[in-house]
Amino acid sequence: MPNQARADDRCMLSTIAMQTLEKTHPKLTELKKRLAEIDDINCAASLLYWDQATYMPLGGATARGRQLATLRQLAHAKLTDGAIAQLLEDLSTDAADLPYDSDTAALLRITRRQVERATKVPNSFMAELSKHRAETYQVWAKARESNSFALVQPYLEKTLELSREWANFFPGYDHIADPLIDASDHGMKAATIQAIFAELRSQLVPVVQAITEQPPIADHCLKQFFPEADQLAFSLKLIQQMGFSLDRGRQDKTLHPFMTNFSINDVRITTRVQEQNFSECLFSTLHEMGHAFYELGNAPALENTPLAGGISSGVHESQSRLWENMVGRSRPFWRYAYPQLQAAFPAQLQSVPLETFYRAINKVSPSLIRTDADEVTYNLHVMIRFDLELALLEGSLSIRELPDAWNERYRSDLGLVPDSDSNGVLQDVHWYSGCIGGAFQGYTLGNLMSAQFFEAALKAHPNIPQQLEQGDFESLSHWLQTNLYQHGRKFTAEEIMVRVTGQPLGTKPLMRYIHKKFGELYDLPLTAIAA
Amino acid sequence: MPNQARADDRCMLSTIAMQTLEKTHPKLTELKKRLAEIDDINCAASLLYWDQATYMPLGGATARGRQLATLRQLAHAKLTDGAIAQLLEDLSTDAADLPYDSDTAALLRITRRQVERATKVPNSFMAELSKHRAETYQVWAKARESNSFALVQPYLEKTLELSREWANFFPGYDHIADPLIDASDHGMKAATIQAIFAELRSQLVPVVQAITEQPPIADHCLKQFFPEADQLAFSLKLIQQMGFSLDRGRQDKTLHPFMTNFSINDVRITTRVQEQNFSECLFSTLHEMGHAFYELGNAPALENTPLAGGISSGVHESQSRLWENMVGRSRPFWRYAYPQLQAAFPAQLQSVPLETFYRAINKVSPSLIRTDADEVTYNLHVMIRFDLELALLEGSLSIRELPDAWNERYRSDLGLVPDSDSNGVLQDVHWYSGCIGGAFQGYTLGNLMSAQFFEAALKAHPNIPQQLEQGDFESLSHWLQTNLYQHGRKFTAEEIMVRVTGQPLGTKPLMRYIHKKFGELYDLPLTAIAA
Repeated sequence: MPNQARADDRCMLSTIAMQTLEKTHPKLTELKKRLAEIDDINCAASLLYWDQATYMPLGGATARGRQLATLRQLAHAKLTDGAIAQLLEDLSTDAADLPYDSDTAALLRITRRQVERATKVPNSFMAELSKHRAETYQVWAKARESNSFALVQPYLEKTLELSREWANFFPGYDHIADPLIDASDHGMKAATIQAIFAELRSQLVPVVQAITEQPPIADHCLKQFFPEADQLAFSLKLIQQMGFSLDRGRQDKTLHPFMTNFSINDVRITTRVQEQNFSECLFSTLHEMGHAFYELGNAPALENTPLAGGISSGVHESQSRLWENMVGRSRPFWRYAYPQLQAAFPAQLQSVPLETFYRAINKVSPSLIRTDADEVTYNLHVMIRFDLELALLEGSLSIRELPDAWNERYRSDLGLVPDSDSNGVLQDVHWYSGCIGGAFQGYTLGNLMSAQFFEAALKAHPNIPQQLEQGDFESLSHWLQTNLYQHGRKFTAEEIMVRVTGQPLGTKPLMRYIHKKFGELYDLPLTAIAA
Repeated sequence: MPNQARADDRCMLSTIAMQTLEKTHPKLTELKKRLAEIDDINCAASLLYWDQATYMPLGGATARGRQLATLRQLAHAKLTDGAIAQLLEDLSTDAADLPYDSDTAALLRITRRQVERATKVPNSFMAELSKHRAETYQVWAKARESNSFALVQPYLEKTLELSREWANFFPGYDHIADPLIDASDHGMKAATIQAIFAELRSQLVPVVQAITEQPPIADHCLKQFFPEADQLAFSLKLIQQMGFSLDRGRQDKTLHPFMTNFSINDVRITTRVQEQNFSECLFSTLHEMGHAFYELGNAPALENTPLAGGISSGVHESQSRLWENMVGRSRPFWRYAYPQLQAAFPAQLQSVPLETFYRAINKVSPSLIRTDADEVTYNLHVMIRFDLELALLEGSLSIRELPDAWNERYRSDLGLVPDSDSNGVLQDVHWYSGCIGGAFQGYTLGNLMSAQFFEAALKAHPNIPQQLEQGDFESLSHWLQTNLYQHGRKFTAEEIMVRVTGQPLGTKPLMRYIHKKFGELYDLPLTAIAA
């Protein structure tokens, strides 16, 4: 068939073009060399940050802030000095025939996007922003401790100004938040997210309503005394069983848990412990492990290139939430892990039945703190922040009015009023260490994606729940590795959702998951949502 | 008096020139900015190294080697790109009248020396050397483990070649080792060191001879089981009492103990533990603490400049040895610390008298391993290595012949023949991770200097021994801080010896110290050496 032949020809040409480009093109070699150097600098900066958050003595803080700024500016300067842009330009004709999926085509595509974005923001602005972020973080820490929003208000006012200024380096947007959103969730816009969030909200509110009318689940089995060292040892042992190897990573303590990496073979997670609340360490560990699995699963060929890593804030979060919630708060998983947990904490849990424990870790209850929120109410916290960000950027809300607006939304959406700004508007670090705009939507996008990915994985391997009961994580890990992790940042979030799940991002998978899980847990007459 | 007036005028002019330069000269500001950036990059590289040696998972090794090489090349390139040389040139006339002691004059002087040295070595050579060092280190680790010098021989042959090549970037030397020695002990030459070492050797050998004719000291009290965690806790508590603050530093475990820093307020030491040998952790901790005190004592104004740090490998080692030996192996110190040690290890030490312990930690006995050597034989180990380095560089000894030459020197100088190359020529990391030449003389120079400094401190504060007995380290610390630490790298080793001790470097203070201490310990008829 002629068409077939033509397709083969085209494929053959592409392969030759790619081989030629990859093997012999000195400009591609030069480009990769320059990108590798930038990656090395960025990895060093990541280590400076990791150390600051784990082991650095107090006295090191001033120098560390300066060193981080120096390295970040150096990486920014090297990305935008014109040499890489010129190489991309020189390679563009020869690369035109490369298959879209090829590593080289993706490298050029992603690098081009990075260079274009970085070039639009002047180095001097980045330096000012970086300095302001560091200062604001310090003031926020004090403000939160002393419950004084007034202390940080002028800093946040400047943050808002700088955020608007940053957005205006990218003219032509529909909404001023769009460039900020695009920076962490490329391809997303305020309007798209508002539509998805509205749809999700309309479905979540009745579920929350129905649950709060039921008798509350008892969770005092989690609120006993669990010694710190034992919690750390158990969580580390558990994630090793799940596939986290200490040959390629580690876990350390920190104030605000995070994942970072300095190579696809050195991926580190951090956690924190509350001795009177067992959930904190365990689920923060599983959460960060999910992030780590994504980076550890990158194809080795992506190492030291801009393709290593995760696609977007949303897709990255989908993996932390998949492992934390879909796996880590599931009944099959605890059928496997609970006997070990009881053995590790006999005094606390020997007499607590699995079902009591399972219900406790899935208790739904509107609360003030996002990071402590259950799977059902969590997204309401995110939506509050997202809406407030838009209002701030639009100018319809001032920083001065922000605490009241925050409290009012908590009252209307969750039926609770924060007892203090520290438990209210000051609780999250995001606005106080970065920009206003684009900081929070990724959490809910991630929750939506996690359910959509997990549903697709279950469709491919319906026996995953039975495997989890046996402590066998192979099918799920392998499916995620093959379909998502290995590709690193080659595709957009939109592309990967369709490639992997056959559907664009939607709210149905998450709502199906919630209806099924919490309908059963709370004995609710929730309608099953059709596929 | 006319002369006096002229001196005052000159001083006044210098002060004005300095103030003008420091406060208003944009080129000085620009120079400092560039040097600060280089220091930031170097500090990031130091953190990459610290992490590699303490917490990095195995998988991170390949990327880490690459990242270290990238940062070091970046710092080298920035130092030698011509801009700093031009600024130094532009500033040279205006700076000519600055007092030699001023921070600014020292900054220009030290920077000029660094730039000149770095500029002579091409960036491409540094990259090759850096790569070869990393590879050789890996091979050495295997060679030492499998006791196979043959494995690493070809690598070491290339190291010798590269070392010679490096030296030849600095033509005009008297001995080919001179440029290599100068790089770590600026101002020193092979001939000078040979003369000092010959003098020291002629005085040490009779002492060693006399001691080996005495009955050996019993040291089995140190060879009991001391649990690792308890050793680490005790050593950390001890150095905190001596002035090491965890607000400005930390201690971690590693394979080969070292000190490093990322700011004068973030100075870290590492240690290692043998559970069957108490000396290892304790004295390696005190040793590294001495190095740390030097850096922690730098004047704050030197932070983030090339003046921060220590003068040379010898002067730095003088401080580790002063605190490890002159203080840490002294009777007054243990009169203070031994009750605490007994309380920490009652089962092991409650029935061991202080004098028995004191004698045990000062036992003299020819041995195979440099790092385990006592104060009397230690320098003989160093001299063997120094002589072999010279012979290799001169070409009178080949790498192939090196193991036999090593063993022969141990037989003739220490009366022992290594049972294996792992305990012989493979024992030290230096040649296998750096150049051949300049690697070892600093240890003996440091021992000589430590005694000379300590003697001067005792002359200024004769009651230091009584203060040590009370756990009062203030006079000694303050004297070192004022006379040495605060100056960082402003002066040369030669200058500082004369400034601080009134004498150029000599062997008498160390030999006086050895005669007095070991004459008493071993009841030897050693002649007191006159001051």
